[in-house]
Amino acid sequence: MKIAILGGSGYTARELLNILLRHPYAEVVSVTSRQDGTVRVDELHPSLAGRCDLICEPFDADRLIGKGVEFAFACLPHGASMQAIPALLTRGVRVIDLSADYRLRDPNVYATWYGESHSDLAYLAQAVYGLPELYGEEIAAAQLVANPGCYPQTAILGLAPLVAGGLVERDSIIIDSKSGVSGAGRTPKLGTHFPECNESVSAYGIGTHRHTPEIEQALGDVAGAPVSVIFTPHLVPMDRGIFSTVYAVPRRQIDELKLLELYRDYYARAPFVRVRKTGLPATKDTTGTNFLDLTARVVRGRIVVLAAEDNLIRGASGVAVQNFNRMIGVDERIGLL
Amino acid sequence: MKIAILGGSGYTARELLNILLRHPYAEVVSVTSRQDGTVRVDELHPSLAGRCDLICEPFDADRLIGKGVEFAFACLPHGASMQAIPALLTRGVRVIDLSADYRLRDPNVYATWYGESHSDLAYLAQAVYGLPELYGEEIAAAQLVANPGCYPQTAILGLAPLVAGGLVERDSIIIDSKSGVSGAGRTPKLGTHFPECNESVSAYGIGTHRHTPEIEQALGDVAGAPVSVIFTPHLVPMDRGIFSTVYAVPRRQIDELKLLELYRDYYARAPFVRVRKTGLPATKDTTGTNFLDLTARVVRGRIVVLAAEDNLIRGASGVAVQNFNRMIGVDERIGLL
Amino acid sequence: MKIAILGGSGYTARELLNILLRHPYAEVVSVTSRQDGTVRVDELHPSLAGRCDLICEPFDADRLIGKGVEFAFACLPHGASMQAIPALLTRGVRVIDLSADYRLRDPNVYATWYGESHSDLAYLAQAVYGLPELYGEEIAAAQLVANPGCYPQTAILGLAPLVAGGLVERDSIIIDSKSGVSGAGRTPKLGTHFPECNESVSAYGIGTHRHTPEIEQALGDVAGAPVSVIFTPHLVPMDRGIFSTVYAVPRRQIDELKLLELYRDYYARAPFVRVRKTGLPATKDTTGTNFLDLTARVVRGRIVVLAAEDNLIRGASGVAVQNFNRMIGVDERIGLL
Amino acid sequence: MKIAILGGSGYTARELLNILLRHPYAEVVSVTSRQDGTVRVDELHPSLAGRCDLICEPFDADRLIGKGVEFAFACLPHGASMQAIPALLTRGVRVIDLSADYRLRDPNVYATWYGESHSDLAYLAQAVYGLPELYGEEIAAAQLVANPGCYPQTAILGLAPLVAGGLVERDSIIIDSKSGVSGAGRTPKLGTHFPECNESVSAYGIGTHRHTPEIEQALGDVAGAPVSVIFTPHLVPMDRGIFSTVYAVPRRQIDELKLLELYRDYYARAPFVRVRKTGLPATKDTTGTNFLDLTARVVRGRIVVLAAEDNLIRGASGVAVQNFNRMIGVDERIGLL
Repeated sequence: MKIAILGGSGYTARELLNILLRHPYAEVVSVTSRQDGTVRVDELHPSLAGRCDLICEPFDADRLIGKGVEFAFACLPHGASMQAIPALLTRGVRVIDLSADYRLRDPNVYATWYGESHSDLAYLAQAVYGLPELYGEEIAAAQLVANPGCYPQTAILGLAPLVAGGLVERDSIIIDSKSGVSGAGRTPKLGTHFPECNESVSAYGIGTHRHTPEIEQALGDVAGAPVSVIFTPHLVPMDRGIFSTVYAVPRRQIDELKLLELYRDYYARAPFVRVRKTGLPATKDTTGTNFLDLTARVVRGRIVVLAAEDNLIRGASGVAVQNFNRMIGVDERIGLL
Repeated sequence: MKIAILGGSGYTARELLNILLRHPYAEVVSVTSRQDGTVRVDELHPSLAGRCDLICEPFDADRLIGKGVEFAFACLPHGASMQAIPALLTRGVRVIDLSADYRLRDPNVYATWYGESHSDLAYLAQAVYGLPELYGEEIAAAQLVANPGCYPQTAILGLAPLVAGGLVERDSIIIDSKSGVSGAGRTPKLGTHFPECNESVSAYGIGTHRHTPEIEQALGDVAGAPVSVIFTPHLVPMDRGIFSTVYAVPRRQIDELKLLELYRDYYARAPFVRVRKTGLPATKDTTGTNFLDLTARVVRGRIVVLAAEDNLIRGASGVAVQNFNRMIGVDERIGLL
Repeated sequence: MKIAILGGSGYTARELLNILLRHPYAEVVSVTSRQDGTVRVDELHPSLAGRCDLICEPFDADRLIGKGVEFAFACLPHGASMQAIPALLTRGVRVIDLSADYRLRDPNVYATWYGESHSDLAYLAQAVYGLPELYGEEIAAAQLVANPGCYPQTAILGLAPLVAGGLVERDSIIIDSKSGVSGAGRTPKLGTHFPECNESVSAYGIGTHRHTPEIEQALGDVAGAPVSVIFTPHLVPMDRGIFSTVYAVPRRQIDELKLLELYRDYYARAPFVRVRKTGLPATKDTTGTNFLDLTARVVRGRIVVLAAEDNLIRGASGVAVQNFNRMIGVDERIGLL
Repeated sequence: MKIAILGGSGYTARELLNILLRHPYAEVVSVTSRQDGTVRVDELHPSLAGRCDLICEPFDADRLIGKGVEFAFACLPHGASMQAIPALLTRGVRVIDLSADYRLRDPNVYATWYGESHSDLAYLAQAVYGLPELYGEEIAAAQLVANPGCYPQTAILGLAPLVAGGLVERDSIIIDSKSGVSGAGRTPKLGTHFPECNESVSAYGIGTHRHTPEIEQALGDVAGAPVSVIFTPHLVPMDRGIFSTVYAVPRRQIDELKLLELYRDYYARAPFVRVRKTGLPATKDTTGTNFLDLTARVVRGRIVVLAAEDNLIRGASGVAVQNFNRMIGVDERIGLL
């Protein structure tokens, strides 16, 4: 399968290359970038030296078709993604978009949270939300998959077993998330300057983070009814990893053992969701992997769910490959274990 | 004022020495430790070399009295503290205990959460909880002050303005706290071994952390009625700092500006509580200081409070000196600004 | 190929499992450990949950033979390794020892630096030093390979092109190395307690580090004459990675471009040694890989060599698999790219 | 003493304010900055909230004189410093310049290493190099003090006892330094973006770092003859701290005990240089202090010196206050212990 990666300079592109370069069904034939001049991929990402000798090229849909590209991963910023992707889709290329552009079904919600109108309503209507544990069959058949956000996966998979059975109140869910700094992308800013964010914890985007409607949309799908959440992201001094602590009010009393059984049953066929039997999740146990680790506890009548993942793998590039596997009809674990 | 420090080998003793060695009203004349043989304080704490040439000695109340000790700070583990302190109190020494032994007024609560009976009920009844912003007058007059826990200060000071005015429900408070690793003390363990906890976030003590009843006791005092909280501590890869994100359900609608005004009024005379006007708190802004930084937001009808402190200074040794200043009748800021 | 891993609780065993569990020619059938009772491998290493369901067992050579074990990796501490390995070798098992026990050919040197006599002179005489770029053919034929130390690989591969051609003085080499904390192993100690070593750089083992004679032995082999080095290791607050800065005095003037050409020629057939053309090495570019990144500069008439690796992969478990591949006669890159 | 701080937005200005705000002889009356509009100092540096309510102002020498400013600290970038300072000097203000502009006596050397001509030769000729342990008397009398660089202090103070007595070869000195990231300043760049430099060690400025001539100038003064060094700086993932490992070739045999005695004698009257008797220096022992910790060892006939400091305090703002104390004729320790 000949593959193009659009937007090759960031962390998700690097992680994707790292996985695809050893994937038996993938051959990356093009990496696009707005970098001026001739830049080798391994100059952008020295960790890939000796494994990839591609040279970045400007995005050009026809040229990609000319190279035989059948599949593309878009690692572009939101806004840029919906500018570039339609040209590929109309040429028959299947696409996984790692930006947020095709995640929110309702263009008004997009406009509200992203501050601009959606420019591609046609394909938006066809896009499938790429959370394989919940939308696996639609993903397999999709031409365009909107890869899910990093935070949302911990929240959605952490809560799905609860909202699926109507086990918890849908209007009092609190999601307190802690992320490593790579989640902020690769563009240097004061807030991600090492001496500013190292040895510090802080919250940001209180009540305004754009992953909120994405979480609510997917949980609404699972519940079959609207779900409302309070989502508070925090920045933590580490490279990668997201840890979400989720608080929910049960609608009926529940026993902790039954709760864990519910989770294990719900994810019995999900090879990348590990419901911890002993011990508690830690982001480190998931670093470099596509696993999402979960557990749940009952504390003073409330349910507390703990979820951990690697934000760049499970939270972005790993789950993208999991989706790719489903789309091309092979075992979803290929290249990821 | 001649001072003894009991239990000199840990981080709170080191921070206390660092502050007291430049405090104009303090002269540290003894540091006790169970260390075998002759150990200099600056061998235990090389950062103090050139500033302190004391040699550790075993704890002996009479010997301390013989040295003229009038004031002691106990940096012992809980359990050990209530064994050592009575001998000093009966000899007229005033004591600030940095352990948890004298924090919980009800010995049954102590027994439940600490797993052993309290061995000094007499002095427990006289101890004053050492949170200066709330118990300032009692502290000034006390012989024995129970210095508050690190987590509880962020939770209590973060919530006091809300529960004082009956502004929030008292049974649905959630405290999600993130702590640097020094909070776990100085004894090496697998969980605090660098390659285990670095680059990782994890939760611990879900529903069982001993700071829970301490938070509830103080908030109950402020509210004049029982308060129940869910408290979830997390370990974050940094040396020092605690960040608490507190969620509360308001009993009536409140405007964000009014909320901030409430906080500013409440702490108008508290020099070490900074209610942030712009920006959000970050633990780094408090590192090495006795400040506790606060702000509050209204999100989808809930109140979200953010509180940050240095767990070793404001959370332990700094607030101890603040209490010391109050007890000896000087400006509470001395030695801390 | 049925494989046993001896000493499963440390970091090198975990990394080895992580690689071997996806290696097409490896089937791990046993992991031994001194852990009491029944301990699952994924309890020791939660990151391996969902990938390995082995239970640790005590070491017993006959039992391993009974399971069909043909190959073993020993991740035991030095001293313990030479106690356990002979029983496997006499039963025909091929072994890669990740400890230091079989690295030094001269048992007197072992006794001097390790403080105890060598207990297995017979197999010591047959052991091959497992640095594949220098001893590749002997490794392929060996029954017992002494996997090289983490620091020595950066020093030896960094200097080999220089000493091979007699280009530098052999008595004035300085190796200044910086290591992440995982190099100290998994046993908690005060020096590796997070709040002690985080945010700090320090040197240790000045003039006494046991990797010194290992470096000198291999460089002596390359030079065909004795080489003497000053080696100073430092502890740096990161999980993994070694960076070595090597200073050497050239015996004749050399041009920087020629120097780099020399390195590129020397390693032209070494897929895991990357001689950087642009930019300088950084440990991060090698994290999680078996690559060793190198460059060299001429500064005021001296040669400065920079070498970076992941101490747990290239420095231990990855190079062990590279050796395994050579020993079983397959492409040395299998499982490592 | 009324004080102005020029260039208030960086780390050295923040650290200086932190020290001067509690210094009994200092009153900061102005902080200048190129920030547009009205910016409070505690908006630039939230850690100073509650301690400093100054508003940044543009630099204007007459306005500063009008405010009674008698003393200024320049925290400007090099190049900008020599533009601003003369206006103050001609108005009789005494100045400590924390940039590199007045450190190198020879303007040709400045031009060579900094890539531009020196624009203020007149005051350059009068400037005193502000390393108090070596130039203490000249500093006391100076109008303009060129505060020393962070790296140079570790190298110069680490080597001074050796070169003073002609104990080592002056042409084979190697200085291998490791610095925390705050040394790179506060301007965000890719190299100091957290996910790039965290969990990584790298070298930079091989053979070209501008602190090289500064080290050689001061050591030349001490030796009374030219000294040549190879200086290799490294970036280490921590906020603050410099650790230098210095290698020198003795001209005659020396015993380690004698060597340490030499160091202790040399620094007997230097309150901020701590020659470690036991243990080895670690940057953490110096964090937040003005101490420079040193020790020396003999390894295989070479001398290895280890030096550690806090790069922002001892390496910049602390030593600036030490110089200030000397210039105003008070105990050099005031405000620093």
